[in-house]
Amino acid sequence: MTLTLDRQPSARQAQERRVFSFSPGPAVLPLPVLREVQRDLLALPGAGGSVLEISHRSPAFDAILAEAEANLRELLAVPADYRVFFLQGGASLQFSMVPINLLRGQGLPATYILTGTWGGKAAMEARREGRVHVVWDDADGAYARVPSAAELDLPEASSYVHYTSNETIQGVQFRRPPEVGDSPLVCDASSEFLSRPVDVGKFGLLYACAQKNAGPAGLTVVVVSDEVLERCGDDLHSMLSYRRHAEKGSRLNTPNVFGVYVFLLMTRWLRDEVGGLEAASARAKAKTGLIYDALDADGGEFYVPHAEVASRSRMNVTFRLRTSELEPAFVAAAAERDLVALKGHRSVGGFRASLYNAMPMEGAERLRDFMLDFRATH
Amino acid sequence: MTLTLDRQPSARQAQERRVFSFSPGPAVLPLPVLREVQRDLLALPGAGGSVLEISHRSPAFDAILAEAEANLRELLAVPADYRVFFLQGGASLQFSMVPINLLRGQGLPATYILTGTWGGKAAMEARREGRVHVVWDDADGAYARVPSAAELDLPEASSYVHYTSNETIQGVQFRRPPEVGDSPLVCDASSEFLSRPVDVGKFGLLYACAQKNAGPAGLTVVVVSDEVLERCGDDLHSMLSYRRHAEKGSRLNTPNVFGVYVFLLMTRWLRDEVGGLEAASARAKAKTGLIYDALDADGGEFYVPHAEVASRSRMNVTFRLRTSELEPAFVAAAAERDLVALKGHRSVGGFRASLYNAMPMEGAERLRDFMLDFRATH
Repeated sequence: MTLTLDRQPSARQAQERRVFSFSPGPAVLPLPVLREVQRDLLALPGAGGSVLEISHRSPAFDAILAEAEANLRELLAVPADYRVFFLQGGASLQFSMVPINLLRGQGLPATYILTGTWGGKAAMEARREGRVHVVWDDADGAYARVPSAAELDLPEASSYVHYTSNETIQGVQFRRPPEVGDSPLVCDASSEFLSRPVDVGKFGLLYACAQKNAGPAGLTVVVVSDEVLERCGDDLHSMLSYRRHAEKGSRLNTPNVFGVYVFLLMTRWLRDEVGGLEAASARAKAKTGLIYDALDADGGEFYVPHAEVASRSRMNVTFRLRTSELEPAFVAAAAERDLVALKGHRSVGGFRASLYNAMPMEGAERLRDFMLDFRATH
Repeated sequence: MTLTLDRQPSARQAQERRVFSFSPGPAVLPLPVLREVQRDLLALPGAGGSVLEISHRSPAFDAILAEAEANLRELLAVPADYRVFFLQGGASLQFSMVPINLLRGQGLPATYILTGTWGGKAAMEARREGRVHVVWDDADGAYARVPSAAELDLPEASSYVHYTSNETIQGVQFRRPPEVGDSPLVCDASSEFLSRPVDVGKFGLLYACAQKNAGPAGLTVVVVSDEVLERCGDDLHSMLSYRRHAEKGSRLNTPNVFGVYVFLLMTRWLRDEVGGLEAASARAKAKTGLIYDALDADGGEFYVPHAEVASRSRMNVTFRLRTSELEPAFVAAAAERDLVALKGHRSVGGFRASLYNAMPMEGAERLRDFMLDFRATH
């Protein structure tokens, strides 16, 4: 693929095709959001230049940052004693920042619940900072389910308890946060962030990269309680310290200005067009429901779902073919219908359809129809 | 400022004004680059969707990343035994990553040359990882100049020697890298990156945020020699480890896809429109020359330059008014002529005109004319 620098912008874009991408992230964004970004790309109203050019200290960005945070607080009903930061480095940097701030130098171990690949990566980084106690690791079961409350034998006290609310690769999701007693609950919500309401008050710290349900790659959102902030270590590297970020409110250094701007447009779209997170959740259930219903109707004869029913993700539907030799044909036939990025992660194999906030119902319907047709013809 | 979500994109943008922004960063971008971003925002040719939606593992992004790196290597003549990473977190995260990788656990101290605010911040983070030896700190002289070679009393051996090639806030710039013997030279090139040729072979590691001369905020470029990579500590937090990034070539986790894309367009523009870094350097000299000439012609009667002549930055021109009471009037009158973001950093006061790669000559001429007029009428 070659991109050409064209100094005479033409109407070429009208001819460019948009397909249905089931990419696990970065992922599809709503067309109205993309159109607004496009419209104002040369000059943001009132800012005197492009959003790509404005200072992070400008009144224009003051307004963007304030509204982005306000909208997030409204959508998620974030309590007043929680802080919100827009950072960089993805969830992966949070895998390290969480233990650097909350495990280093603490007497108590951190407890990790591992229900998939990403939780495992988070625990690996935590071990660099102190003792890590793993209370659940279903690797032997290929991470096909999340534990029940009865299965979680939590220690009486931990520096914190970490879990991954939706495992993107395996397609398993907690229905509700685990009950962890008095220890702060830390959640990697990356691949379900803003797809449904959550009771933020149950968390000590919640983090998510934006590029699945909430914006472009390069932006990370952290929501942290004042209580947990006080537990954080001090005298840490500035960029790795939640306390330093708290002092500077997302502007300890230059943030991803464009990322925050697109996130703002996403929150408006979620509120005004989708109707909030209850509605987003209903949409997610309806969209993934079409695919799960097709899998269930098949009964495992042709398609084999990965996740157990009670743990199925409303974001990432994972399955394989009973006859794995047919998988290349499945990919090719799907692409012919403009259904792309369906290949599963190499660690799980098969297929993964990610149906985030911006995936229209039409995309889910087309995928379902294709799956039924493919089964009928093979 | 309120942004409205408009689902019927209109021709409004044509009416939006673009002013001349002398912001120290994020800063102005070339109009042809912005136009191309705008044109392809809904669907990148051949990618099936927006650059904001494509996977960082997609063929489209493979091509973007490969060409961005190739163009950078061509523009800067990066030797084959150097690696290039596109990271997140700005120069500020590099202030920590450099000593975490190259000072922690080493026997030798790190040497820092402080010629302004940013070098001081870098040294502060380094002290968390080991001994820091400051060989030059002209804070008493308000950082108005860089040291001569004779003034730098460097220790025989250091873990590395760090300096800031252009101090954005004070407007002082090294003409050439300091000679540091066998110790690896580490350079924060943030505010002069890609504004002139540099002999990359003289550096062990060179880093820069993109939002001044090379792209939008949220992208950091690191160029590091294989030799220095080998000196880096191991067993570090993955996201903070240059070795881990080297293994994964900018994709240890999801990079700022959009930032790399705009960086790619910037490198094309620099090569094809500007004519390479020698030409960029000549442009920078011509643009800042207009302003410095105006300051020199004044002879300190009305305008007082901050930086000493031999250390003047070709990026950020710093000055104040002899009569500081006139400064608000200067800002207001400049804004009336669409010349904005001229206020100096609070630590230096007065004014700062940043004239990065994308500032057209017309902007410099308009500023010069305004300065002459303002002097004549006050």
